Amino acid sequence: MSTPCVRIADLAQYEGQSVQLQGWLYNRRSSKKMQFLQIRDGSGLVQGIVSKADAGDELFERAGAPGQEASLRVTGTVHADARAPGGFELRVTEVTEVGAATDYPLGKQAHGPDFLLSNRHLWLRSKRPTATLRIRDTIIRAIRDVLHRDGFINVDAPMFTPAACEGTSTLFDLDYFEDTKAYLTQSGQLYMEAAAMALGKVYCFGPAFRAEKSKTRKHLTEFWMLEPEMAYASLEDVMDLCESLLGEIAARVLNDNQRELVDLERDPAVLEKIVPPFPRMTYDEAAKILKDKTDFTYGDDFGAPDEEAITAGLDKPLLIHRWPHEVKAFYMKRDPNDPRWALGVDVIAPEGYGEIIGGGERATDLAFLEEQIEKHELPKEAFEWYLDLRRYGTVPHAGFGLGLERTVAWMCGLAHVREAIPFPRMMHRIYP
Amino acid sequence: MSTPCVRIADLAQYEGQSVQLQGWLYNRRSSKKMQFLQIRDGSGLVQGIVSKADAGDELFERAGAPGQEASLRVTGTVHADARAPGGFELRVTEVTEVGAATDYPLGKQAHGPDFLLSNRHLWLRSKRPTATLRIRDTIIRAIRDVLHRDGFINVDAPMFTPAACEGTSTLFDLDYFEDTKAYLTQSGQLYMEAAAMALGKVYCFGPAFRAEKSKTRKHLTEFWMLEPEMAYASLEDVMDLCESLLGEIAARVLNDNQRELVDLERDPAVLEKIVPPFPRMTYDEAAKILKDKTDFTYGDDFGAPDEEAITAGLDKPLLIHRWPHEVKAFYMKRDPNDPRWALGVDVIAPEGYGEIIGGGERATDLAFLEEQIEKHELPKEAFEWYLDLRRYGTVPHAGFGLGLERTVAWMCGLAHVREAIPFPRMMHRIYP
Repeated sequence: MSTPCVRIADLAQYEGQSVQLQGWLYNRRSSKKMQFLQIRDGSGLVQGIVSKADAGDELFERAGAPGQEASLRVTGTVHADARAPGGFELRVTEVTEVGAATDYPLGKQAHGPDFLLSNRHLWLRSKRPTATLRIRDTIIRAIRDVLHRDGFINVDAPMFTPAACEGTSTLFDLDYFEDTKAYLTQSGQLYMEAAAMALGKVYCFGPAFRAEKSKTRKHLTEFWMLEPEMAYASLEDVMDLCESLLGEIAARVLNDNQRELVDLERDPAVLEKIVPPFPRMTYDEAAKILKDKTDFTYGDDFGAPDEEAITAGLDKPLLIHRWPHEVKAFYMKRDPNDPRWALGVDVIAPEGYGEIIGGGERATDLAFLEEQIEKHELPKEAFEWYLDLRRYGTVPHAGFGLGLERTVAWMCGLAHVREAIPFPRMMHRIYP
Repeated sequence: MSTPCVRIADLAQYEGQSVQLQGWLYNRRSSKKMQFLQIRDGSGLVQGIVSKADAGDELFERAGAPGQEASLRVTGTVHADARAPGGFELRVTEVTEVGAATDYPLGKQAHGPDFLLSNRHLWLRSKRPTATLRIRDTIIRAIRDVLHRDGFINVDAPMFTPAACEGTSTLFDLDYFEDTKAYLTQSGQLYMEAAAMALGKVYCFGPAFRAEKSKTRKHLTEFWMLEPEMAYASLEDVMDLCESLLGEIAARVLNDNQRELVDLERDPAVLEKIVPPFPRMTYDEAAKILKDKTDFTYGDDFGAPDEEAITAGLDKPLLIHRWPHEVKAFYMKRDPNDPRWALGVDVIAPEGYGEIIGGGERATDLAFLEEQIEKHELPKEAFEWYLDLRRYGTVPHAGFGLGLERTVAWMCGLAHVREAIPFPRMMHRIYP
């Protein structure tokens, strides 16, 4: 008789049958007569029960030998058990060690963040990182599905660029060939503007780089960014897309990752509230809220304490639009009703997660952009191709950038974005 | 009365109705009494007809003014026309120029590749690049859908790495912080091996970098690579996944991109033949085919002329497995039946597109890997984390890397991979 080899996630289909699992020993509790093996295989976690009376002395002893994170093939019968996490347990009839593990470094004691990050390749096997990466996967799929449904085409932006897009202070450069300098991309936006003129609605979704010296819980040197861009679109269109996208992300996580939210001790009620419409206010209105609350200076960008004061009591993201043009990028369109304002929008997540989206409407006028490039002392020749987009059939267009790790951290309730990416890169960390 | 603003792709839903399009003037044919405006909006192309008799002199003249690639809002009535590319044409009742375009650089004359690549930001608007990017989008979605359906989790690999994975000769390095060197990733595989031990089945799909000095039609310095990795899997499992994945990619392109294949003059019959199973042979068998055909030396890797000779007459990809271990990477598992062979597989596309996939089963034994790292003179300390995967619960595992641009080039029938990526990066090209 051949025993089917199955994944833990599929156990419900095999109730009452004998199956083989292939996984690792996550944990063990033992008494003189019983062994409880927690077995994980990447698809889930199940408890395997070895009773000395049923299994016999030899198997009971063999099942007690493997160390934490040893790899095992385990055969047993699937039994429904309402108390078990996945609803099933396995009554074990055979255990074979595939690969041993002695003194697994991540024991039951609490570890500091440095130790965990240096052992990220092993830490990934633990409950919280596994749950986080599954939710990250859900969020990536939700984003791509929503944009495809809405007619967007994925157009990848280049990683090597000839010039800075968002200012030179956080730029990584490298020697390309024959004394050429290349810069690692900080944003694919300018390229997406070109692509939107070709394909109408586009997005890139890939790594971006910032040589951030700040060691806050919101910064990585390497992060993933989604950047949709739409031709014939306005600031309003961008705000509507931000809203529907974030709403659908929360809904998908709630639908697909109930177990992971439990593992992360993340209250689903918090995510259930992320339903459009979201509150919107202008920078001017937001600044008024701050009066006498923080040391904010009118005209400046909001800092983290300002964002927290503005969003206090909110359980949905807040869209802040129409910013002083001085604090926004050179390519932003000015409000035709009041040229003090740039038609930008920041989306601030609740619970102190801060800015997760920045975007807006882009300037369409060639002369205005040439003037801005001069004012900002940017190298004009590097932007000639970008200016071509205004020379040949310029149209109103708009888009935004969403930081994936900040979104994952928010959905998962993580304390630091470094837990929201599989292998975080920070000022003092490029290993493993 | 408000006229609905619609996308060209949706025109079929508005037959007989008046609609407004927002797009660009792709091309124009005129006579004294008729203007035929080819209008594109990123979703498709439609012909707008302006008849002097119906439209009147003023509109007729106005419709004749905008240059190629001027942006336009065009109102008209949707009429079915079997001869039209999308099945519909627009009888134009109003034309408004949104943004002018004078002397658009990409005229009707033939341009050389350097000129086109320097104007890639505009070239994207042409029929072939647009069709290619749409097919690239389909292929990306097909890959992600197939892997999700099969239980894979997307785990992004880092771009900054502390050491080389595939040899140091084609490595880009850069100054990280405080005198640390970082290297741009050549492959996420080692990281995917760690992730597979946590999540069972994983994949990364992101940029990879090779400082390639070769100027062949198959090389880019920056390309996108899919790398699935499976725990408890063998070379056979990898070959089966290669087969089903490539089969589904071809089926999806055939289903979703009929119009784009026409635009690219790509014969769908070629793609219809890419149906599993694919032929499989060992390196040893492939080498025998070459006898007296090329100047191949037994034991070497196959060059492009060898690959073409081996796949001559085939209309499906060929899987070549069991390679001399000397030509494969240090982490490959040896064939237990004959240790001369590494359990690797290369997938060679037909029509001269060459290797699009390389993969295989990974070595599981700690002592063997330590020996290989020493033999290959690799810095052991940089691989300690990787060796941990064999110290703690090692399991049989396998995976592969698929080059996205080579796959896109093959599906689209392109002459060069540089057309298969939105903004190609090569030895002498990082602009725009």
